[in-house]
Amino acid sequence: MELFKKTLNIIEPGDYEAKKAAMQRIDNLAKPIGSLGTLEDIAAKMAAITGKIYNKINKRNIIVMCADNGVVEEGVSACPKELTAILTQNLTKNFTGVTVLSEFTGTDITVVDIGVDAVINNPLVINKKIAMGTKNMVKEPAMSYKEAISAIEAGIEIVDDLCKKGYDIFGTGEMGIGNTTTSAAVLSAISGLSPDLTVGKGAGLTEEQYENKKRVVKRAIELHAPDSKDPIDVISKVGGFDIAGMCGCFLGAAKNKRPIVIDGLISSAAALCAVRLNEHVRDYIFPSHLSEEPGAVYMMKEIGVEPILNLHMRLGEGSGCPLAFQIIDSALYAMNKMPTFEEASINSDGFIDIRE
Amino acid sequence: MELFKKTLNIIEPGDYEAKKAAMQRIDNLAKPIGSLGTLEDIAAKMAAITGKIYNKINKRNIIVMCADNGVVEEGVSACPKELTAILTQNLTKNFTGVTVLSEFTGTDITVVDIGVDAVINNPLVINKKIAMGTKNMVKEPAMSYKEAISAIEAGIEIVDDLCKKGYDIFGTGEMGIGNTTTSAAVLSAISGLSPDLTVGKGAGLTEEQYENKKRVVKRAIELHAPDSKDPIDVISKVGGFDIAGMCGCFLGAAKNKRPIVIDGLISSAAALCAVRLNEHVRDYIFPSHLSEEPGAVYMMKEIGVEPILNLHMRLGEGSGCPLAFQIIDSALYAMNKMPTFEEASINSDGFIDIRE
Repeated sequence: MELFKKTLNIIEPGDYEAKKAAMQRIDNLAKPIGSLGTLEDIAAKMAAITGKIYNKINKRNIIVMCADNGVVEEGVSACPKELTAILTQNLTKNFTGVTVLSEFTGTDITVVDIGVDAVINNPLVINKKIAMGTKNMVKEPAMSYKEAISAIEAGIEIVDDLCKKGYDIFGTGEMGIGNTTTSAAVLSAISGLSPDLTVGKGAGLTEEQYENKKRVVKRAIELHAPDSKDPIDVISKVGGFDIAGMCGCFLGAAKNKRPIVIDGLISSAAALCAVRLNEHVRDYIFPSHLSEEPGAVYMMKEIGVEPILNLHMRLGEGSGCPLAFQIIDSALYAMNKMPTFEEASINSDGFIDIRE
Repeated sequence: MELFKKTLNIIEPGDYEAKKAAMQRIDNLAKPIGSLGTLEDIAAKMAAITGKIYNKINKRNIIVMCADNGVVEEGVSACPKELTAILTQNLTKNFTGVTVLSEFTGTDITVVDIGVDAVINNPLVINKKIAMGTKNMVKEPAMSYKEAISAIEAGIEIVDDLCKKGYDIFGTGEMGIGNTTTSAAVLSAISGLSPDLTVGKGAGLTEEQYENKKRVVKRAIELHAPDSKDPIDVISKVGGFDIAGMCGCFLGAAKNKRPIVIDGLISSAAALCAVRLNEHVRDYIFPSHLSEEPGAVYMMKEIGVEPILNLHMRLGEGSGCPLAFQIIDSALYAMNKMPTFEEASINSDGFIDIRE
């Protein structure tokens, strides 16, 4: 509880002076003002995060929170619950979507057992297990208020540790059968949006199973009436350990003044909770792609970010983050390397100033 | 005329057998079917282009077609016409958006004078000048039918030459004051969409100038009544040399069975003409970003592609292509490196098969 409270208290907004200085330079680069669109916004936002006008990412890490969800016994997933543990193990091999894309982009991966309902004997998986999965949220709260905070603190600790190791950007990912259900529930509980809008077909439900999934989310919210103004109450009643753990990652990144990237629906649910806990966290968050899950578009609006990639992905694992890292790196490189009109005129005989 | 006709005749559709084989492998990769969305589509489309299941891009080139537009004398641009020549020169230095982003992604640039209204004395600019800019399309056709074909052939020749040099992916870009006007005119002429929908504010028009720009496009189309079924007629009456040249690049890439990437509005106009000249060209085209220009969304629909990046860019120059190259490279890498369930089970003791 101490780490959680302390973290929320010391998170600062981005450095708006640095952002202003960066925007001033960007507006003077040898191009029409604003013509590089979001690439300019990315560079300016990064300046606010680091306090520096020129930025370069050197070490990337995607944190993958793995956990089971008790609600799976309601038949909300096309996959058996046992897959969570199996896929958590597979994440430590270079086999899955996120690991292969991370290899391509020079990104390290941190696999965390935050609540898998199995004993994971793997030195490559960090053990932060809060419990053997959550409870079934249509019968009782998914977890206690205290457990939610412990899971969030685990996420903060992971990021604190990775910051000490020199990582300067983070991605968020997850593995947990049933977690599109909990994410939709968190979104509906916080936003008031009907589960008819927020619930999707996940990894491949039939129409009938899909209807059931919506009913399950509605029932869980009706049963617990989570306080939309209290993300911890929402997470503990209808969320999951993976969402809580990633929420901690977002808080930890903001505390450490490091950029952190959202992946898909579940990662967005965590980001939304983090932003509602402390609105300054938004200053440290970059979106990646727009997940194929129908709730994703509402998530992005609630968080207040706009996805930069449109790839119809729905794999999770953090697989959108390595792709976003490349666009962020490109944006920083372009803004660092493009000269202002002044610089170009001074440094090169051949440059022709296009201003009137 | 010979090269143009011959090219149109020898363009073949993609190799659908290779695509099918690639999709079969992709569907067996260690992930839920379809969960990597467009990354999967990219890898399958590339298989159709090359005829091989495993693909890797080694040499990238963005072709930037530079030309002036006579219609600028109608006040359709916020920038003076002289900028085209100046910015063409600047493209040969490492200063502009596309050059800096290309440097970051290991991409070469080919700058082509296809119709700049100035003598460009620069060994780094390829001289394929058809004329000193087009005519003012509200008074007479922008160019002759023959000139349109010559400009298209210049584009084909450039790509033929670059293919011999081993480039295996192309980007398309342009530089030409007034070319959002001609692109909107081409789109309206081909699609029948009102200029109220296709015309945008380009590099920063006032509301009044914007209204004028729409009137100009309407007038040009009314005056010439270009044949919507004949892209050459459309280009010659209301297009530009840059659009024609890039149209040739799309045809040339299809002829040589090489992938080619669309950038923004002007590049899309060229792609649209190429696809209408020979529908198989679509098999070789990859989109990049959704330009901020309002016509872009209609262009994408008419061409039949969906942008993968959403960055509010409106710089042109081909600046969206290096960003798309990275996503394409990521897609190919992931599909090459991820094992199928079979491969994973055979090659690794530790892998656990997740199929039921």
